[in-house]
Amino acid sequence: MQTLYVELGERRYPIFIGSHLDPKALLEPYLHGRQVMLVSNTTVAPLYLQSYKDALIQLNKQVAECILPDGEQYKDIQHLNLIFDALLESGFNRDCTVLALGGGVIGDMAGFASACFQRGVNFIQVPTTLLSQVDSSVGGKTGINHPLGKNMLGAFQQPQVVLADMAQLDTLPDRELSAGLAEVIKYALLGDQDFLVWLEQNMDALVARDANLLAEAVYRSCAHKARIVANDEKEQGERALLNLGHTFGHAIESYLGYGVWLHGEAVATGMVMAADLSQRLGWISVEDVERTKKIIQRANLPISCPKIPLDEFLAYMAHDKKVLNGQLRLVLLQRLGQAVITKDFDIELMKQSILANQSVS
Amino acid sequence: MQTLYVELGERRYPIFIGSHLDPKALLEPYLHGRQVMLVSNTTVAPLYLQSYKDALIQLNKQVAECILPDGEQYKDIQHLNLIFDALLESGFNRDCTVLALGGGVIGDMAGFASACFQRGVNFIQVPTTLLSQVDSSVGGKTGINHPLGKNMLGAFQQPQVVLADMAQLDTLPDRELSAGLAEVIKYALLGDQDFLVWLEQNMDALVARDANLLAEAVYRSCAHKARIVANDEKEQGERALLNLGHTFGHAIESYLGYGVWLHGEAVATGMVMAADLSQRLGWISVEDVERTKKIIQRANLPISCPKIPLDEFLAYMAHDKKVLNGQLRLVLLQRLGQAVITKDFDIELMKQSILANQSVS
Repeated sequence: MQTLYVELGERRYPIFIGSHLDPKALLEPYLHGRQVMLVSNTTVAPLYLQSYKDALIQLNKQVAECILPDGEQYKDIQHLNLIFDALLESGFNRDCTVLALGGGVIGDMAGFASACFQRGVNFIQVPTTLLSQVDSSVGGKTGINHPLGKNMLGAFQQPQVVLADMAQLDTLPDRELSAGLAEVIKYALLGDQDFLVWLEQNMDALVARDANLLAEAVYRSCAHKARIVANDEKEQGERALLNLGHTFGHAIESYLGYGVWLHGEAVATGMVMAADLSQRLGWISVEDVERTKKIIQRANLPISCPKIPLDEFLAYMAHDKKVLNGQLRLVLLQRLGQAVITKDFDIELMKQSILANQSVS
Repeated sequence: MQTLYVELGERRYPIFIGSHLDPKALLEPYLHGRQVMLVSNTTVAPLYLQSYKDALIQLNKQVAECILPDGEQYKDIQHLNLIFDALLESGFNRDCTVLALGGGVIGDMAGFASACFQRGVNFIQVPTTLLSQVDSSVGGKTGINHPLGKNMLGAFQQPQVVLADMAQLDTLPDRELSAGLAEVIKYALLGDQDFLVWLEQNMDALVARDANLLAEAVYRSCAHKARIVANDEKEQGERALLNLGHTFGHAIESYLGYGVWLHGEAVATGMVMAADLSQRLGWISVEDVERTKKIIQRANLPISCPKIPLDEFLAYMAHDKKVLNGQLRLVLLQRLGQAVITKDFDIELMKQSILANQSVS
C-alpha cells in the first residue's frame, strides 16, 4: 500500500492506494463522531457496501445508508435532496461523517451534501472507479449538474481521508476503465512527459488491469494533481490546467445529453481537439497530435465525436465555467507534457479543430 | 454614516450603517466583474429594487433579478433553485456578484446560492429589516430550511460588503421591528450589561423608530457579533453564545410552523425560557428574570408561547443543530450580560422552564 498526502495545511489528508485495503484499520483514525452515512448507488452498493458497514459497526458507529440510482443523469438537486432527507430522517447531527462509496457522481453528490448539511460535516471518500480514484479523490471539488450546465452548483469540500482500492476495479466495466485512463493520460499530457513515456510503455498492461501498474498510475496521477491543488486550491490560476480537454468535452457531453458519453470519453476527444488546435497554432507538431491520438486510442477511447452543429457546440462551450467575463479561455499544449491556459488563440482555428475531429457519419 | 469592519483576515469586509446611503458610491469598490444578480422578494422589490438597479446600471453593470415570494416558508430548496435558474438563464459566470436585497430569508438564500453557484461567487448584502441588519449581516451563515429542521442546509459565506440603511426601516411593519429588537436585546443579555442599561434607557425611542438610536443599536449589535465571529468563524466554541434563546426558539418556530411566529418573537420567548432555567439553576435571581421579561415586553415581544406538548417541544429541540453527539447543549445566563454554553443542567428543571413560560389558554 502507498500513502500520498494532499498538503492543504490544516486540511491535509491522506490517500491510501493499494489492493484489498482494510477499511476498519484505515478509517478509524479519521472518523470523528458516532454517526456515519454511507452514500452509494444501486450498482456499487450490492458489491461493496456490506464490508464497509461491517467495519463501521465493529467500530461501534451508528450507520445509515442512502443508495441513489446509478448515473450522471441523477446528479441533480432532486437526488442531492435525497441525501439530506436520509441525514435528517436518521437524526444525524453536526458531528456526523458522510462516506461516499462509488464513482465520481457519488463522490460529487455526497461531498456536496456533506458541505451543505448543517453548513459542513466530515467527509470520507472511497472512490470505486479508476476515474474517481485519479480525479475526484484530490481537489475537493464537489457538486451537481443543472439543466443548463454541468457542475454548475457545488462546493470545495476536502475529505478527511481517501481509500483507493484497486481490488474494487475488478468489477468495473471496460468502458469505465478506459474513461479513467483518459484522465490518467491527461496528467501526462499537461505536465509530465516522463509519465507519457511510461504510459506508452504500459498502456496494454493497464488496459489488461495489472493491479500493480494501475496502483502506480493512480499514485502518479494523484501526486500530480495534489501538487497543483496544493498550490491553487480555489482554482485562481494553475489549477485550471487540469481542465485540459474539458471545455471541448463539456460541450460534447452536454450536447449528447448527460450519461450518453462517459465523462472520460468526452475528455479524451476534447484533448484531441485541444492538441489539434495547439498544432494549428504552431505550438506542437503534427506528429505530437498523432502521438496524442495514439495513446488515447490504445486506451480504447474515442478520438472524435459525433457530428454536432457548430453553433450549438460553441454555445455549450460558452456555458462552461472556464469562460471568464464572457471570454473563452482554453487549456492548450505548448508542447506534449506542458499545458498552458490561454485566451490568445484564433477562434476560427478553434472552429476548424472542432469540425476536424467529428466523425463524418 | 458609521463603518464597522468585520475582521476575517483576507475576507475582511465593511458594514456601512446610516440613513439614505448612496449605493453607487458605496458598492463600486466592492463589485468585481460585470454581472450582478439582484435577489429580492415581492414585498421589498417594489420599494427599493429600482434605486439599486439604477445605481448598478450607472456603474455599467449587467443587471438581472430574481424576485422570490416573501416569507420563511419559501426558504427551501425549490426556491433556492429559482436563483440558480435565474443565474444560468442570464448566462452568469464565475465572476458575477449576487446581491441580496431583503430580510434574513433573502440574505440566507441569496448567500447560500452565491456560495454554491459555480462553487462560490461574490456576495453583497443589503439587509432591509432590523433583524437582518443586526443578525445576518455579520457571521456569514447562510442556508435554507428542510421539512425536518430549520437552517439544516447551508454554507459559511462572507459578503464583500454590507449596506445597512435605516431609511429602509421606515416601511418595516411594527411586528418586524420588534422581532429585530429581540436580537438586539440578545447581544445585551449575552455579553454586555452596559448595552442592557442603554436599551432600558432608550427602548421607547427605539420602538418609535428614532433613526439615530436605531443606527447606534445596529452598530453596537454588529460590533458585538463581529468580535465573536472574528474569534470563532466556524462556530467551534464562543460563537455558539449567539444562540441564546435559539434552541427553545427553534422548537417554538418549528412546532407552530415556519412563518407563523417571526424568528425574533420565538427567540424572545426562548430567551425568557433560558433566563428562567438559569434562575432555577441558581445562577441569576428572580429579579434578573423579571428584568429580562420587562425589556422584552417593552419591545412588544412575547414572553410566553402557546401550549406545546412537552414531548414534541423536546423532540424539536433535539433536532436543533446545537445538539452535539445527541447531547443537548444550551446557552444559559451566568448573570445578566454574561452567557455560557453548557450541557450541565438538570433536564427536569429545563422542562419546568418550558412549561412555566407557555400561555395557559
